[in-house]
This record gives sequence, structure tokens and C-alpha cells, in this order.
Amino acid sequence: MPANAFGQLFAVTTFGESHGPAIGCVIDGCPPGIAIAPEDFSHDLARRATGRTRHTSARHEADAVEILSGVYAGRSTGTPIALLIRNTDARSRDYAKIAEQFRPGHADYTYWQKYGIRDPRGGGRASARETTMRVAAAVIAKRWLAEKHGIAVRGCMTQIGDVTPHGSDRLRLDAAGIDWNVVAANPFFWPVAAQVEELEHFMDALRKSGDSVGARIDVIATGVPPGWGEPIYGKLDAELAAALMSINAVKGVEIGDGFAAVAQKGSAHRDAMTPQGFLSNHAGGILGGISSGQAIRCSVAFKPTSSLRLPVPGVDVHGNAVDVVTTGRHDPCVGLRATPICEAMVALVLMDQALRHRAQCGDVGAVAPRIPAGQS
Amino acid sequence: MPANAFGQLFAVTTFGESHGPAIGCVIDGCPPGIAIAPEDFSHDLARRATGRTRHTSARHEADAVEILSGVYAGRSTGTPIALLIRNTDARSRDYAKIAEQFRPGHADYTYWQKYGIRDPRGGGRASARETTMRVAAAVIAKRWLAEKHGIAVRGCMTQIGDVTPHGSDRLRLDAAGIDWNVVAANPFFWPVAAQVEELEHFMDALRKSGDSVGARIDVIATGVPPGWGEPIYGKLDAELAAALMSINAVKGVEIGDGFAAVAQKGSAHRDAMTPQGFLSNHAGGILGGISSGQAIRCSVAFKPTSSLRLPVPGVDVHGNAVDVVTTGRHDPCVGLRATPICEAMVALVLMDQALRHRAQCGDVGAVAPRIPAGQS
Amino acid sequence: MPANAFGQLFAVTTFGESHGPAIGCVIDGCPPGIAIAPEDFSHDLARRATGRTRHTSARHEADAVEILSGVYAGRSTGTPIALLIRNTDARSRDYAKIAEQFRPGHADYTYWQKYGIRDPRGGGRASARETTMRVAAAVIAKRWLAEKHGIAVRGCMTQIGDVTPHGSDRLRLDAAGIDWNVVAANPFFWPVAAQVEELEHFMDALRKSGDSVGARIDVIATGVPPGWGEPIYGKLDAELAAALMSINAVKGVEIGDGFAAVAQKGSAHRDAMTPQGFLSNHAGGILGGISSGQAIRCSVAFKPTSSLRLPVPGVDVHGNAVDVVTTGRHDPCVGLRATPICEAMVALVLMDQALRHRAQCGDVGAVAPRIPAGQS
Amino acid sequence: MPANAFGQLFAVTTFGESHGPAIGCVIDGCPPGIAIAPEDFSHDLARRATGRTRHTSARHEADAVEILSGVYAGRSTGTPIALLIRNTDARSRDYAKIAEQFRPGHADYTYWQKYGIRDPRGGGRASARETTMRVAAAVIAKRWLAEKHGIAVRGCMTQIGDVTPHGSDRLRLDAAGIDWNVVAANPFFWPVAAQVEELEHFMDALRKSGDSVGARIDVIATGVPPGWGEPIYGKLDAELAAALMSINAVKGVEIGDGFAAVAQKGSAHRDAMTPQGFLSNHAGGILGGISSGQAIRCSVAFKPTSSLRLPVPGVDVHGNAVDVVTTGRHDPCVGLRATPICEAMVALVLMDQALRHRAQCGDVGAVAPRIPAGQS
Repeated sequence: MPANAFGQLFAVTTFGESHGPAIGCVIDGCPPGIAIAPEDFSHDLARRATGRTRHTSARHEADAVEILSGVYAGRSTGTPIALLIRNTDARSRDYAKIAEQFRPGHADYTYWQKYGIRDPRGGGRASARETTMRVAAAVIAKRWLAEKHGIAVRGCMTQIGDVTPHGSDRLRLDAAGIDWNVVAANPFFWPVAAQVEELEHFMDALRKSGDSVGARIDVIATGVPPGWGEPIYGKLDAELAAALMSINAVKGVEIGDGFAAVAQKGSAHRDAMTPQGFLSNHAGGILGGISSGQAIRCSVAFKPTSSLRLPVPGVDVHGNAVDVVTTGRHDPCVGLRATPICEAMVALVLMDQALRHRAQCGDVGAVAPRIPAGQS
Repeated sequence: MPANAFGQLFAVTTFGESHGPAIGCVIDGCPPGIAIAPEDFSHDLARRATGRTRHTSARHEADAVEILSGVYAGRSTGTPIALLIRNTDARSRDYAKIAEQFRPGHADYTYWQKYGIRDPRGGGRASARETTMRVAAAVIAKRWLAEKHGIAVRGCMTQIGDVTPHGSDRLRLDAAGIDWNVVAANPFFWPVAAQVEELEHFMDALRKSGDSVGARIDVIATGVPPGWGEPIYGKLDAELAAALMSINAVKGVEIGDGFAAVAQKGSAHRDAMTPQGFLSNHAGGILGGISSGQAIRCSVAFKPTSSLRLPVPGVDVHGNAVDVVTTGRHDPCVGLRATPICEAMVALVLMDQALRHRAQCGDVGAVAPRIPAGQS
Repeated sequence: MPANAFGQLFAVTTFGESHGPAIGCVIDGCPPGIAIAPEDFSHDLARRATGRTRHTSARHEADAVEILSGVYAGRSTGTPIALLIRNTDARSRDYAKIAEQFRPGHADYTYWQKYGIRDPRGGGRASARETTMRVAAAVIAKRWLAEKHGIAVRGCMTQIGDVTPHGSDRLRLDAAGIDWNVVAANPFFWPVAAQVEELEHFMDALRKSGDSVGARIDVIATGVPPGWGEPIYGKLDAELAAALMSINAVKGVEIGDGFAAVAQKGSAHRDAMTPQGFLSNHAGGILGGISSGQAIRCSVAFKPTSSLRLPVPGVDVHGNAVDVVTTGRHDPCVGLRATPICEAMVALVLMDQALRHRAQCGDVGAVAPRIPAGQS
Repeated sequence: MPANAFGQLFAVTTFGESHGPAIGCVIDGCPPGIAIAPEDFSHDLARRATGRTRHTSARHEADAVEILSGVYAGRSTGTPIALLIRNTDARSRDYAKIAEQFRPGHADYTYWQKYGIRDPRGGGRASARETTMRVAAAVIAKRWLAEKHGIAVRGCMTQIGDVTPHGSDRLRLDAAGIDWNVVAANPFFWPVAAQVEELEHFMDALRKSGDSVGARIDVIATGVPPGWGEPIYGKLDAELAAALMSINAVKGVEIGDGFAAVAQKGSAHRDAMTPQGFLSNHAGGILGGISSGQAIRCSVAFKPTSSLRLPVPGVDVHGNAVDVVTTGRHDPCVGLRATPICEAMVALVLMDQALRHRAQCGDVGAVAPRIPAGQS
């Protein structure tokens, strides 16, 4: 698998640098017959875009998707779908300084060590701008998953700095009935409407301080039938972990109760089953790497942005000590735009596993008994 | 990538069920010239074996490795290395009942839903017995990494239930100077000698209660040169996440500070660099998916064992409600044997990335400036 | 894809050297529910075995297949199926000389240059003994293809040295009505019964002369539905070419009319279609890399055996000129045993493409109009 | 490996339809530091372009390559290189009829059967226009192979219809001293200058007749070091066979003497070795799937164009019998433009194998003895 490609059968290859002429992707292996139009990408791209609120970077990209191939008469044909977005707001002015310095917390130094050459403009290939194409590709995956299987993949922010949702148990979020309209109605993808104002103040103060914080995003996929995922190294949770950890700034991934399971007793953790449904969902909808039919629950940790106007000791390309100060446009919390990206990666994993499942097990008919999802 | 294979260039395919005739693996792509003898596998296999202490399952497997191919005159030849271990202590008696029930917290139901057929003996393919071959394959990887690059991959347990190491900051463990001899000298792979007796009591009480607990394992790889790992989807941390999450019972993976980064400020998290070395290692040795030359730090959450003699509501293959009671041999804490398995997966990822790095970047000479690892 | 693995979804990894302890394979991705027993492998393995007639090498291997995993209660479970054959007639005596020389026409020198080490016993990994496992794995593929789709994959020899089938147009062989019972009834897999005695004399004279000849094998797959194969690099014919060229001693592969098409006119070559069926099959059942529903026809060229008792100038491992004389057990025509191997590779390609097709196009229902195979 | 991607480490994914907005490719895994400019693609793209002589299709494409990513300051950075060519001469007029018919000898029917939908404009994805991107990607591979290893990959036409080179033994072409300037100086890539006029007449008569013929292309790669290629399924010749067979209209592939080896004696075919060099090259530079250091020789059969103005029985999308007449712009011999495409595929295989070789065997130093290429 080439490093810039994701998925074995629904294979998405992305390309492009932050301040190069364009970013794009090629989706190989897409089922034929899916309705796809350029405007279908707008909603999710807008959800992840910068510049929509004062809390995210001021960079404003039109993010107009051009479909270069693989769609005929409004439907996917089964051949590669290439999507292209021209970079329009790539300010290529003051790179002289940045080209000379390795910014702490960034990939500048590691790309340099790997390749002996790097594109320093806006972080080059290591920029989160690449995630635009993940979101675009996942629009198609989400549509297929929804139409063929009734699957919904939705995420929300569940922690920012040390702020957590009031009065709700994060581990039982979906069961507690998240109001997804609330999540959609605030720039933080926050599930508790009453806290939005507090978060606005929190972010304003943070921006003023010149510092940044991390965030936690939860993603919940409902409607996934039992049986998706493959044994051992192709486990559904293993691929979710890779998919989510591949997002810029992610430092941790949990499935179900995650690290909370360390302190749990087995008698409490294992999800009892009855013919009427599962009685709990500590596992997060996956057992032995294969979906159980319950809601699939992932949680993701984002580190705080490293680009700050506060100086930090760094090193330049000549090996000299320097003080690094970042003056460009940056998010004080990268997690603010991360929800649609996390959803996208979960959708891409599910899409790929769905195709792999029917490849191997298309001969297996309906399997009884089927246990209802029950408590999610 | 087939589901039972791991790695792109150092590709390990495992096979075998818990109570089938044998388990084994095929390692394809191994560099030629590595000294390999059957006895080389004993040390790490013994570290993960059951039946060594009263705290783990009583199943006792000889785990004698037969080398079937790929080694000539004591050295790897570059052709596939097949390793085989016959199962000798597979008690195949009372499977009638287990074949009829889906055990909560196990893969019984999900395998059934996927394949419409399952080998119920001892968990079949979903048994942790498969991890034996991960450890065996990693013996070769560890040797190559050590001999060619001076890399050491070592792990220890850092939480069991709610017990954590006394007087040490887990996030700074290695820097604080873990005494690996202490870890090697107790059955818990615990880094604090003074707590071993407490853990003995803890485990005895747990076993007596019939219940189980989860555990946290940390793995630290030192000596990894900067530049390993690939951009975007082939990120070193993404592959570590998949590798570790693919281990049975794992529910969470962290790189560096992991979920603690959510509440951190950017000014605290980003690791300052000086010509004399990095000043901290919150990132866990990876930036932009590529190694920085610092210690690589991972942390893994294991859920508590689901097989208990305490009854739990379950469902049988006919869809009836049943009370499931497990009477077989099981570990009250699967994490107790997990340390060498976690080490193995980290070693396999590093080995594979090392080969991929020199494939693409073998033309890149020594890259200056090189920043010392500094604070790990 | 590791070098010793074949297939993306029905993935077969083989291992083992000619005179090592064993050869074997792991089949990952096999659909569940296929009936498999050790004795099922006997028929095809006997067809490719040495030592059955005076025209093939005297090496006699029992070729008893042990199923190590992936089969429960007589059926495939969807987990990896490992097959093992112990080497029993590996004479390890006179390797001192062979270890010192590079035999012309063999892989001795090239393995040495690649790896700097080689297993010289009986050709090591480069021995045709490896093909035993291809035949074994394909037994499962052939069964599934036959049971699910009514596909038959059959081959015969169509040239040995300069002898060709009397009175039959090779390019129209199947259409002319090959009697597969004739093919099965002679040791040459020859389609014309009247020529078998002539071939016996031919081979006796050849063996007496100490020399060897090449051979051509044709394989015909009937019953393949239209639509299998993938565009561009995953073309059905591209994968057949790789599969067949990967067999030891193969120097050429043709699909349909192959090289004869060079001198044909377009008006003659293109296969006219009518609602009642295709009027010819110059294409060999594949158009644009995708099956047309007609018979798939491949033809394969095998070079003459290089191991002869006639001396040939060679070089030893010290760089000295030597005369190489081979006294071991060798076939005067490797093509004699190649028919089941060629069939196996065609079956493995079809099996893999069948799974890939339903992965991507499982949503596509019956497509009209369907043109009958007609002239094959 | 997705179907539209080629290569494991130097991975080229192409996209685009004949008459869609654009064609393009993404090259993932390219070594960093290679000098690349848009104008570097012009030479080889012009060699494969249509409309240069009266013997090829009148379609005229500017084929101006835009580099969208992966190149900074004129050098490859190691990140994906995306190349884009806008389609400028895609006449989208009379597709009504072609959309209703399946053209015999084309992929119309098979794409329809596979996907249930197809882009009928100019053959859609099945058009040879896709090969433009193979040639473009191979420009980079050829450069690296030449600069790092002194490798030259060159091809010529060696048969068109029943015309063969005068006075030269095709199998010994390179050894006989092809004058590559002659090949470059005529529109047929023909190696014998004296025959060019004859070919002009031949093609004029053919075009007038409304019919087409097939062609044979030979490709010779010199300078390939011994040791490239992998065992068993990753054999150098197996991958060359797949690569060449994946080109539109190819029906056969030979390595070295190919099908001529069938009638050869072993004593004649095996290439004797001396310390001063190989004495012949029947093997085509590959033994056991690994390069021997001799010239690598491949030969490829192209079928005659199926699109003719001469009518042929066909079927329409409603299942009715129709007479198909093609009036568009088409080559009377697709082989005329195939030489650079064949070269491209050989170069892509070598590039990929070169990277794979150093991945696994980078530890292996210079291996003695090294036998000179000698007779090629």
C-alpha cells in the first residue's frame, strides 16, 4: 500500500501540498451507479473549512471540487474518480524565514531528515490541508453506507482543554441521546447547547493568550451490521485506530471504553447479551475485530497546535539555535475542525471493510440468530 | 494486504487456531544473512507463555519452534521463513457446551455472524494463542534492529486495575530511568520493585473473587534514527496504532502523551529543540508520522478478561437466553502476558518501516543538522 | 504484495525449499463453508508429481497434505488455511559440488547476486517443487469456481519440441472438441490419442541423447461469466500473464490468438457478436481486460530443462571457469508436468478476480443483454 | 493493489477517460531529489502522440503536463507527484450511436456487463489515451534508472502484419547492433532504414483498404545489474509480463527467446557462462525471476485495431443485431505508437524492483564473482 493511499478496495490516494497549485485525490474501486455531483461535497467541506468563525485560521479556501473522471451522466462508473481543488489562498510571501527553521512540534525537521529536501510553504505535504480530500472522498463513502445499509457516521467534540460536556457521561453519549442538531448548530460541534457561550469565552481568552489547547472528538457509527471487519491484522478496530491516528495532531485513539477499561472489572466490562439485545456497549461495537451490530464508538485525542506567536527554542537548517515565533494564520485548537475529518476516516474504513466483507463472505446468507443492537 | 498478514515488506502471515494441530507463520521479505536458530525464539516466547506463574492460565505449551524454510547454514537466505509450533496442550473435551453458546465479550457471536461457521475450540482463531507467532516473528526483527541500528524495544506494565507505579510519572518513565532488570525480574513486568508484593496480593484476591481487571502496557523504542515513517496514511504512529490495536483485548493506543495532550497547552506540549538535543518528548518521538530520533513511546489499554466463572446473560446459537459460566483455564488479567506482545508489534512496525525507508530514500545521504535525542 | 504471495483477496503464500524439511502454503481470504479434506488434494498433486512415468524425474514424493488450520468439521471457516507437505525424498548427499558451481540456465547465479547467500540443495527455493503448493491451493479455488459458477479450468500440451497435434488447429482447440478423456489418459496431457506412441518414442530418444526440449501448454477456462477482471493494471489477461510467467521455466504467454494476431487483419481478428452468440474467439474471452463470457484461452511456452548430463561452460563461486555436468534426477521436458500447474495459476487468478468483482460490483444486478459464449 | 495503480513502491495510479475533462496520474513513493520539470515529459509524450504522421489517428492533443504536487524547487520531494493533462481535442458529437452499440473487439460489452454503466465517449476508460500517463510517469523512472544505474530502456517495432526486419535475426537484435538513431528517425520505430519506404507504402495501402494489422514490439533494457527481481510471484519476468499485457490490444508477451524456446534443445538454450561473460542470451537476461546482468529482452504482440469502417455484426444495448461501422479517428495499426508505451512499462517495472531490491537486500554488499553481460 503506497503511503499516500488509504483502503484496500475503496482506495483513496491523495496528493498536494498546502501551498502548491492544487490538492486532489483519486478514488479507485468505487462501486458503480452512485449519484455524485460537484455540489455534493460542499456540505462536509464547509464543516471542516477554516475561516468560518473567529476561532479558526483566517485562511479562506473556496474548496470548489472539480470531478475529473469516473463519473458519467451523474453516476459513478466504477473507474477512478479523481477530485481536484485548486489552492486559491496560498500566500507565498514570507517563506524565506520558515524555510530556514525547523518549527518545534511540526514535521519540518522529520521531513528534512527523511528526504533531505522539503517544501516549507505552509507545512507542505504535512499540512492539515490534505485532510480536505479525506472529507471529500468520504462524502461518497457516507452516501453509499447510508443508502445501502442505513449507516450514519457522526461525531462531536467531547473535550477541549479541560472543559468536558456538563451532565453527560461521555462514554454513554449516544445512548444518552445526543441531539445532533445541537452539534450542528455550534462551531465547536459541541453536544451541550448550554455550554456554547462558555466555550466562546474560553476560545477568545485562549486566542488572546497566544496559546493553544488540545481536544477530544468522539465518533459514533450506527447501523453497521454484524460481521464487518477481518481477523487478526485486518481488525475493524485496528484499521479505525490507524485511520484516526493518521490525522494530523492525533495522539490517541480509543474504541468503546478505551483506557477506562484498564480499571474496570471483567464482570462490569463484558457486554451481556439477551435475545432482546445487548445490555451495554463497553466494547464500542467491536468484538474480536468484527462488528457486533451495536454502535461503533471511537474517541480521538488531538494535541494542541504547536504554531504559536509565543517564542520557543528551535534549530535552523544550519544547526544553530533560534527562537521560533509563528506569525501566520493558525487555529488555536486544531480539534475545532477535526470532527468531519474523524467522521470521514471512520466512513472510509467502514466502506472498505464492507466491500472486503462481501468479497469473502458474499456466499454466506442471513445468519441466525441476530441480536438487536440494544444499548449503544 | 490479506487480513492475517502484517507488514508490507517484512510481511508476517500467521495461521492456526487455539486448539487446532498447530500455529505458525511465514515471514516474507526478511533480509538475508541474519543468524537464526530455533533456540533464539525461546526467551521471548517464555516471556509471553502461560502457566509460568499462578497468575496466568494453567495451559502449558512447550512452544518449541520448528524452522521449516528460509534458513540455510544458520542464516536467513531472503526466502520465506516458515515457523511452526505444534499445539500440545489443547484439551478438546468439553466443547459441546461452548459450541452452543456465544460468550459475552468474546468474538464468538461476531465470527458466527461473519462466516456462518466457527471453530469453537478454545476461541479458535480469535484466541490470543495467535500472538505467539507475533512474538516469534519479532525475535528476528528485534535482532536486525539491534544489530543494524542499535535499537532496543522494551515494555513494562504501568497500570493494572487502578494500581499505578508509585512515585513515578508514567509519561516520563524512560527518562526517569526505568530499571529494566526490575521489569525482567517480576511476573508483572512492573517497573517498581517495591510494589511487586502488593501486586501479588492484588492478583490473588482478584483470582479468588472470580473476576478480572484490565491493564496498561507502555513500550519504549530507543535508538530509532530520525526519518523513519511515511507521510499521511503510512505514518509511523498510524501503523503503531493499528499494530497495537490488533492485539486481542486492546481498547486504546496512545503515542507520547496521548490523551493527556487534550488538556495541555501548546506552549507546554511542543518539544523545544536545541542543537544539544530536544528538551522534552511529549510527542513520543514522532512528528508528522516520521521519527524524530527521540525515544518512541506508546501506551496500550487492555480490557479485563471476559471469561469468568461468574455467570453473565448470553445467547445460544438457537437464539435462546442462557447464563454463561466459563470454567476453562483463563488469565484474570490478559495484560500480564501482553508486554512481549506489545514489544513485538512495535518491533514489526519499525522493521517494516526501516525497509520501506531505505527503499525510497536510500539515495539520501547523511542529512545535517542532526539533533540529539535529548530528553526521552 | 510480498514476493511469495499470490492474489489480493484469495491470497496464497507459499514457503519451502526443495530439500528443506517441508513445503507449504497459507491461503488467506478463502470463503467460508467450502468442503475440504486432505484427500481432496491427491488427484491434482498426482497429476503434477514426478516419478509416475519414465519420462519424468525419478524423485518420488508422497506429497501427503496436512491441513494445519482454517478447516473445522470438514469445512473452511474463513480463517487462514495452512497446508503442509513434508519433504521425504530429498537426497542431501552430493551438494558439495553443486554448492560451488553456478549452473547455466538456473537461478544459482542470480540468487547469489541478489542475496549473497543461497540454499544450493536441489535448487533451493527456485526449484519447481514450490509449484506443488500452487496446485494444492488451486484445488480449493477450482472447487469453488466449479460449484458456484460451473467453471472448468483444463489444460493440455499442444507442442513438445517441434511436435504439434495432428490434424487440429491449436488456436481453435476447444471449439474443435478436445476429448478431455484423451488428455487424462496419457502422461503427456496430449489431446490426440493417435500420437501418444510417437511421443513415447520421441521422449525415449531424447532421454537417451541426454538433451531436453521445451513445450507449449494451453489452458482453457469455460463458464466464466462476463464482467470478471478489472481495468488497466488489474486486467484479467495481465494477471493471467503474470501468473503463468511466474511458473518456473516459462518464457512466453499468449491470450487468445496471441502472437498470431500480429499478422492478422482487424477484419479477421475482431470477434463478431450476434444476439445468438459470438461468432469467433480470437480474443481468448477477454476484452479490455474483462471477461466476455466466452472461453478464456491461454498458451504458455516452457523452455527446455537446463540440467543435462551434457557438459556446459560455467563459473564457480570463486569466479573460475568450470564445466558443469548435472547428474541428478531431472525431467528432460519440464513441460510434461506443467499442465496442472498452468491450470492452477489460471484458477487462482479467476478465484481472486471473482472475489474482487463482487466486492466492487456486488450492487450491480443482472445486466442485459447477455450474449451467449457461442464459438469458443 | 487497486486496479488502476501500478507498482508496489514506485506506485503509479492513473485516472481519466478519453473524452472526460482530463487524464492524470499520481506517483507515490518516488525517491526525493530527482530533477523534474514540465518540459521533461515532452519528448516521450510526442513519441507516443497521435496525429504526427498520416499513419496514426488524426486526434491531436497538446499533451501539456501540469505538475500539481510533489516537486519543489525543481526536484522531487518524496511526496506524491500528481501530473495532469487536460483533454483538448475530445470531440463529443456523435456519441448517440456509439452509446447504443457494443463494438466487436472493444471493451464496450465487457464494461457494460461488469458495471452496468459505461462512459461511451471515445472508449471511456478503456481508451489507449490512458497510456499517456504511463509514458509520463516512466519519464521519471527512466531518468532515475539512467542516472543511478546507467540503464537504458529502448524499444523498436520488429513486425507489422507479416513484414519483418530484413537481414536481421529478431532474437539477436541488440547483439546485432541496432542503430537506435535509425529507430528514432522513422515513424514506425523500425530498426532497418532500408525498409521504411516499403512500410510507408504498406501502411498507405492498408489505410486505403479500411482494414488494420497487428504489430510486434521488442524492448531491450541494458545496464540492469544482477539481482533485481524477487522469487516466485514477484519475479521480474512475471511483472514484465503483467505490465506489458496490461497495455491495450496486447495479446502476447515473451521474455528472451519466448515461444521459440519450445522447439529448442536444452543444450542450445541454456546460456553458457564464462568468467569473461555470458556466451548467449536466450534467457533474455532473467534467471529464476532475477536479473542476470545481461540485457533484458521482451517482445510484445499487438492485435490489429478493431475499429474499422468495414462493417461487422454486432449487438446493441437492447440486444438487437446491428452492423457496426466505425467512422471516427483511429489508427490502422495501434502498434505504431506502442513502442514508447512498452518502454514505459518496462521502465516502471525496473524502477519498482530496484526499490524493492534495496529494501530487502540493502545490507548485501558487492557480491563476487560478477560475470560480465557478454553476448546480449
